[in-house]
Amino acid sequence: MSDTAPADRSETQEAIMAATYRALCKHGYANLTTQAIADEFDKTKAVLHYHYDTKDDLLAAFLEYLLDRFAAHADVDHHEDPRKRLLTIVDRLLFGRDADNESSYWEFQTAMLAVRAQAPYTPAYREQFAENYGFVHETVAGTIADGIDQGIFRDADPERLATLVLSTIQGARTNRIVLDDPAVTKETHEALVTYFDAVLVRDGADGLVE
Amino acid sequence: MSDTAPADRSETQEAIMAATYRALCKHGYANLTTQAIADEFDKTKAVLHYHYDTKDDLLAAFLEYLLDRFAAHADVDHHEDPRKRLLTIVDRLLFGRDADNESSYWEFQTAMLAVRAQAPYTPAYREQFAENYGFVHETVAGTIADGIDQGIFRDADPERLATLVLSTIQGARTNRIVLDDPAVTKETHEALVTYFDAVLVRDGADGLVE
Repeated sequence: MSDTAPADRSETQEAIMAATYRALCKHGYANLTTQAIADEFDKTKAVLHYHYDTKDDLLAAFLEYLLDRFAAHADVDHHEDPRKRLLTIVDRLLFGRDADNESSYWEFQTAMLAVRAQAPYTPAYREQFAENYGFVHETVAGTIADGIDQGIFRDADPERLATLVLSTIQGARTNRIVLDDPAVTKETHEALVTYFDAVLVRDGADGLVE
Repeated sequence: MSDTAPADRSETQEAIMAATYRALCKHGYANLTTQAIADEFDKTKAVLHYHYDTKDDLLAAFLEYLLDRFAAHADVDHHEDPRKRLLTIVDRLLFGRDADNESSYWEFQTAMLAVRAQAPYTPAYREQFAENYGFVHETVAGTIADGIDQGIFRDADPERLATLVLSTIQGARTNRIVLDDPAVTKETHEALVTYFDAVLVRDGADGLVE
């Protein structure tokens, strides 16, 4: 976790990233123009072009910005109970509870699905997605390993379980977006928590259900 | 399962669907032109336009064709042991073992991810994806319910578990494609089978691991 320090961004770059988030929610990835981003803050298109040569550069920087935001919150939780940490991570990734509201979170994830679909054709996206995935994977696996060390979780393979958790979360998002059906994420969340309680949490320890 | 009869397609339409599959593998969704499809079989573009007005129509028909292919194989398995049926479905969806070879399966899934990302903007795709999802969901839930009825599986909520399974499979595919990392599907498969054995299969019954 230690080798991913928040990138050193200027205030303008931070403003561009926040504007990119809003523009992605509003217009989606395919219709994300520099004008659409410039419209979301009080600078001109020239400022965008000064900082980022191409849309691909800007989007790759934006993916890094998402990682920094995730990492900033993951750090806060670091000394909490592993059960709570795991549940917090799953909740955030499945429902974006840190986002202003859930509906804008799904607008955003809809745009992100298009960016993901572009990764096989855009090395800069793939590299940054791999870095983000690696960080989240390490966070989940580390949380599971802590729980095992503390005797709260049964013996398990933290790496493999983290892969399962990230697959499940990503697929719930994808299916929810493709089908426009909130039941997908709701049911997946319930089943995942039931799974944690049945398989991961040692008999006698409290389950994950709040 | 009974209300999804294979669509009544002409030989030409079947040939167009097979050519679409090959063209998607080769060119991806963004570069899927009628010429690219026509190049994959011995007809002209005019034949394509005669059968399908637009690229969207053709792709929606193609999604239906995928459902028919899935349904044709799902029927064969219907009287097998629920453990085997579940494993067969998971294997097929995760590794495309019915496909000619696994590498072309991932080329195909890469193209399909782009089609999925388009679903929020193309009602015909979303509707057909919903029908396909519903059928696979029913197949998985029905298999789990059969296992429970036969006393092989523990008591569980088949619908919710099916949602979990489909989320997990879809996310493993998405992450594997985005990251270009076969370990994602391999580890997810192992963890899912471990999960089935730990949670679903009743003590004393044989597990799913072959």
